[in-house]
Amino acid sequence: MSFLKSILSALKPGIVQADTAAPIPGYTHGQASVARAPYSLDDLASLQKALLFNDEDVQALRQSAAILADQTDAILDVWYGFVASTPELVVFFGNTRTGEPDPVYLEAVRKRFARWILDTAEANYDQAWLDYQYEIGLRHSKFKKNKTDGAQSTAQVNFRYIPALTIPITTTLKPFLAKHGASAAEVEKIHAAWVKSVLLQSILWSQPYIRDGEF
Amino acid sequence: MSFLKSILSALKPGIVQADTAAPIPGYTHGQASVARAPYSLDDLASLQKALLFNDEDVQALRQSAAILADQTDAILDVWYGFVASTPELVVFFGNTRTGEPDPVYLEAVRKRFARWILDTAEANYDQAWLDYQYEIGLRHSKFKKNKTDGAQSTAQVNFRYIPALTIPITTTLKPFLAKHGASAAEVEKIHAAWVKSVLLQSILWSQPYIRDGEF
Repeated sequence: MSFLKSILSALKPGIVQADTAAPIPGYTHGQASVARAPYSLDDLASLQKALLFNDEDVQALRQSAAILADQTDAILDVWYGFVASTPELVVFFGNTRTGEPDPVYLEAVRKRFARWILDTAEANYDQAWLDYQYEIGLRHSKFKKNKTDGAQSTAQVNFRYIPALTIPITTTLKPFLAKHGASAAEVEKIHAAWVKSVLLQSILWSQPYIRDGEF
Repeated sequence: MSFLKSILSALKPGIVQADTAAPIPGYTHGQASVARAPYSLDDLASLQKALLFNDEDVQALRQSAAILADQTDAILDVWYGFVASTPELVVFFGNTRTGEPDPVYLEAVRKRFARWILDTAEANYDQAWLDYQYEIGLRHSKFKKNKTDGAQSTAQVNFRYIPALTIPITTTLKPFLAKHGASAAEVEKIHAAWVKSVLLQSILWSQPYIRDGEF
């Protein structure tokens, strides 16, 4: 990253810098450290079919990329506000010694969460994307939670909350989709595509929680 | 059931008879044979909170009861059409000897599926309802699949398709919600409540698939 870009980045903290920005700690999408997913691109295609996820949804998600690019910080304020006000959720960011939410852990996750918004909007479903979904699942489960950020927190995010978060994430996203002139019909279409995509991802993230042979 | 009611029921096959109708084979909601759910009503309340599921959603679901009561057969035609045209799904109704979908099994499930539409719309979240969600989950998993109907079919519905079906079920339901004069805004509200409710149920149904202590 150039010196100029790094200055600009520091001056505009609300704008997530994509590929050209400073590396996001722990964001290992596409890196050799990421294990091969236990599900294939064919499995993904079958799941997309069951979810009625089609090319129109891909286009709608990509349309949202430009709409959301300068809003990720505001969106995360809303999402983090929801988590903070929901004891059942904030506990997963709690420090197990103090019992209080861990601000360092919250902030580390937040940077990757912002990038996740853009990755979801980009909708590039290749092997690297699939493998990283598996990695995200592991990081919610007892297999890898806390490891990325060296956090001292709960051993896992309980399974039940992973698909459930599809709703608050996509419901609170909707007003942001309307902020750059998209018509009401376009907003509905993009919102529906987001619901499908987040649910799809939450299913892939759930794999580490499922008994052998039952996924 | 009176003789008159049984005649009326036979004459109107498209109308699901609720409590007063002939018993639905295998529909054991509220019966002593149903095991206690491994999650509590408090767990349910927490999950509803995470899903932004509130009293307005309950009211919207109940509003849908009257709208859907005489449409369950038409809705099931659409749902079964989707399953039949999706090899990844119809396999779960396949006879393991012939490799063909089992019409007796399909029909037995369909009667309970019609009743499930009405139960979802009634939105009565008591212990009997919770226990029956667990029972439904078991019947999708290797623990109890095929047992209720004596079917010779696949050992399980794979986990991944259970939350996924939230989308086709609620997407194809939407036009039916608009058929009895509800406004576009009311239809949106009812549809959103249905998405939350079906996702919530699919999470409860997933419990038998989850590793011990991770649900």
